[in-house]
Order: sequence, then C-alpha cells, then structure tokens
Amino acid sequence: MPEAGRGVGRLVIFGVGLIGGSLALALRQAGYCGEVVGCSRSAGHLQRAIDLGVIDRYVLDPASAVRDADMVLLAVPMGAMRGVLVQIRPALPPTAILTDAGSTKASIVREVGDIMGPDFTRFVPGHPIAGREQSGVEAAVAELYQGRRVILTPQPHTDPEALAAVTAMWKVTGALVEGMPVELHDQVLAATSHLPHVLAFALVDTLLGMPQREDILRYAAGGFRDFTRIASSDPVMWRDICLYNDRAILDMIRALQNNLSHFSALIRNHDAEGLQQLMQQAKQTRDNYVARFEPGQHS
Amino acid sequence: MPEAGRGVGRLVIFGVGLIGGSLALALRQAGYCGEVVGCSRSAGHLQRAIDLGVIDRYVLDPASAVRDADMVLLAVPMGAMRGVLVQIRPALPPTAILTDAGSTKASIVREVGDIMGPDFTRFVPGHPIAGREQSGVEAAVAELYQGRRVILTPQPHTDPEALAAVTAMWKVTGALVEGMPVELHDQVLAATSHLPHVLAFALVDTLLGMPQREDILRYAAGGFRDFTRIASSDPVMWRDICLYNDRAILDMIRALQNNLSHFSALIRNHDAEGLQQLMQQAKQTRDNYVARFEPGQHS
Repeated sequence: MPEAGRGVGRLVIFGVGLIGGSLALALRQAGYCGEVVGCSRSAGHLQRAIDLGVIDRYVLDPASAVRDADMVLLAVPMGAMRGVLVQIRPALPPTAILTDAGSTKASIVREVGDIMGPDFTRFVPGHPIAGREQSGVEAAVAELYQGRRVILTPQPHTDPEALAAVTAMWKVTGALVEGMPVELHDQVLAATSHLPHVLAFALVDTLLGMPQREDILRYAAGGFRDFTRIASSDPVMWRDICLYNDRAILDMIRALQNNLSHFSALIRNHDAEGLQQLMQQAKQTRDNYVARFEPGQHS
Repeated sequence: MPEAGRGVGRLVIFGVGLIGGSLALALRQAGYCGEVVGCSRSAGHLQRAIDLGVIDRYVLDPASAVRDADMVLLAVPMGAMRGVLVQIRPALPPTAILTDAGSTKASIVREVGDIMGPDFTRFVPGHPIAGREQSGVEAAVAELYQGRRVILTPQPHTDPEALAAVTAMWKVTGALVEGMPVELHDQVLAATSHLPHVLAFALVDTLLGMPQREDILRYAAGGFRDFTRIASSDPVMWRDICLYNDRAILDMIRALQNNLSHFSALIRNHDAEGLQQLMQQAKQTRDNYVARFEPGQHS
C-alpha cells in the first residue's frame, strides 16, 4: 500500500537518467505507482531503463506518452523543457499533475506559464537536491533521495491537491520535502551551488590562460584537485543553469567580485588585522556549518 | 650511513611543528644527523617534541642554539622569520648553512639579504609542498615528504656546496627536489594554492554578507563543503602568506576577476556557445590534469 494513502496510477517520466530513474526505482520499490512510463528521444536508452527494472514501458511520442497520465515528471535538461511542454500541451489530461526536477525554478515557472497558459494550476515546480558523481540511468538507485532535501516552489495559484500529491510522492523516496518561494530558491542555489561551479570553471580557465600554465599544472597539489573537482561537471548542464538562472548567478558573481576587490585592498594596504579578521570569521562560519549541518563529518 | 655520503653534524630547527618535526623524524630515522636541536619560544612545546622522539634536545635562546650549528632550518611562520634572523645573525658560524621552509620565497630572500647582508651566500631558500589537515608536532610523521616535491629557489650568488647539502638532506626524506626561479615559484604557488585559499575565504565571507545567509547555509550541499574546506585553514598562516606573496596573489586575483567579468558577459549576452566552450575546455583540462599528474585518482 502506498504510504500517502493513494499512490499514483500512471507516472510518466521525461528523461530517465539519474534523477528520473532514481525516483522511478524508489516508487516502484514502494509499490506506489500502477505503472511507470518512460519517454525520451532514444529507444535504446529507454530499453536499457526497462532492462534495469527502472520503468515498466516506454513511449517515444511525447503526446501519446501523456495521454493517460496521472502524474508527469519533467527530468530533462533545462534547455529541453520547453520543447517537451509544447509537445505535451494538446494531449495532457485536465486531471494530470505536472512537476519537474530542474535546477532553477523561475525559468520553468515562466515557461510553463507561457505554454500552458496562466490558468494552468496543476504544475508543481520541484528540485531534488541530490546527485552523484556518475550520471545516466545506470547510476540510478532507489536510495538516492533518502534524507536529502526536495524543494517545491508552488505559485499562489497552484492547486493545493496537486501540491499535496507531489509532496506525498517525494516523501515515499525518504526525502525531506520543503516549500520555498521561487526567487529564494534561485538565490540560494546560485549561492551554494551555481557560484561554486562558476568559480571552479573560471579558476581552471584562468590558469589555462597563464604563460606559466605547464608549471602551474605540474605543481598543482591536492587542494587544487578538491577545489576544481566540480569543474569536471557536465558543461551542457551547467551552460543551461547559467542561462536559466542568469539573474541570480550574475548577482552572486558581482557580490563575489566586490568581496575580492575588498580582499585585494586589504592585501594591497598590508592590513594584517583586517585580513586575519576576515579569514577568522570565514573559518568560524565554515567550522560551525560543518558542526551544525553535517555533525558526522569532520572536514 | 647517510645516503648522501656525509650527513649533517648538528641540525638546528626553528619551529618544531608539522613541517620541521617531520623533517627531523625522517632524518633521525635515516641516521643522517649527529644531533637535531629544536628552538622556539615554548619550552613545554619543545619538551613535547623530545618526548615524541622528534628532536634530541632544545635550546630556548636563538643565538645559543645556532652557535655550533652545521645546518639551520627556519620553519617558523612567515611573520616570525625576520625576528629569528635578527637574533641568530651575530652567532651563526660562517660555515653554517641556512635554509627555510616558507610558503613564499621572494619575501624571505629579501629579508635574508636585508639582515645577513648581500655577501651571505650560504642561504638556500626552500619550500616543501606537503601538508596534512592536522598541524603541530603531534602530527609530524617521518613519511610526510615521501614522493612529495620540495622546491629550492637558489639565487645566482648561492654557494653551490650549500645548495648540494640542502638538496641531499631533503632527498633523504624521499622527496623530489627541484630548482625553480624565485619569481616563478611565487607565481605558481599563488595560482595553485594561494588563490584557491583566497577564493574559499572570499566565498564564505560573501555568503555571510547575504540577507539569505541562514537559508544559504541550511541548503549548502556537499559541493559547498568540498569547495570551502580550505576556508577552515589557519587564518594567521594565510594572513601572512597574503602579506608576503602580495604581488603574485594580487595579480592572480586580478586575472580571476577579469575571467569572471568575461564569464558574466557570456551569461548576460546568453552566449550559449561561448559558455559551453569555456566549460568544456576547463573540464577537459581538469580531467587531463587528473589523468596526467594523479593517475591513481579518478575524481
């Protein structure tokens, strides 16, 4: 029996990768869905998802896929969302609930409004804060969301029943489901995830442009490896995040640049006290963060 | 028998912490020194180093400590180097070799020139590129330098015999000893170590200044923890590194700020191709770096 009392009859997932696939596995394990249907552009990929026990069956045509859907999850890259929306709009049943798993939320809210119209109330924007180094359906695991946060950013006109259904679905995976205003989500993610990625890419790109680049790479030590690990992330995904959360990311880059200018002034003025105070406070915050939010972790 | 054929009669180490202590342990294990003498301002700390088998004995007065020294290693914080130099200058035997383990090299070369005079040829500036999360003599281990790089930055007037002796000493620890011009050392370290530390401090400081700081810290995920780990480093040590390698660090901050301005322009102009190209190239470089320089490591 589904934990939330009802479950979902037919769940249709667009983009059966790490994120969509892990949700499917957790829900199937819990017996929460009557059927999980996958949809993407690659039949080979979808067949692989069937072989791995991630989905029950697949449909290649988006409109056909959603025709009898109870719940539709968009887990495709940000740049592919609009194309899927345009294709499913004429076929989506009025009772179906639409949700997504995109990393930025203002953009998808805008796109759904554009395409589905201002009266469409059954869209619940969502963002599971989870990931692994690996990607793709092969990396999907039923436990991915256990104890992780899923942020939902409902609009004032979002149907409360739709919100409750999406909340219940994510809770089945063991996730902590929380609500947040769209703008705050995009600012918080820009600060904690998008800016660090931009910085890692920018740092490696800066070093690449130095005349001493060979020596720099040769002497780069463990700290460099840790610091730039996220520069090995998927460039297409991060390109899209930069484009779709542009305002919040630009604000964060500007804030960091101002901070670096202040930092440079402290160095230029040999302000030992100011430097130590800034670093001491950052260290304190970072140490407190680890103690408060990740008590098991000591580094 | 010492590997280099001679060994060191009496080695005097100023600052018996992780760096000085680990060298002492490796050399004593190899039977390379007649005697290892520690010197610092804390008798309790030096007694602890004796109890741990790191040094043979200690002397509190710097001038007395160096009176019969064959080799003197300065392993105190950058900001304490000058004070030690002033105190040992009158007592240092003309045959003694002076070396250091500081993180920046132009500054110590300048200070030794100022205090010991332009004719002092037996100073060999050095920088072992090694460390651990822990610090202090308790963290010292004989194996710290095995397979790690030690960079020496001799000057045109450096006595070749002194250079050979310092090289031989470090080789006993299992380190790879390499020479490098002073300026290149400081630029390379600014790029690979100092700038990442500045960025980690600046990022945490920037987040601290945001009105959404509570939400930001609550939602900060694993990437934030990795990215800011080095913001938990010792503020006094990093304050000094910023002050003593100011020029190279300011250059690197400026280069990164220019890169971030370029990055911002790509985002502002929605230049998808430019963003993807920058990220793709950074990812490629970072992946190649791991494959080339750390073949055992896959992330």
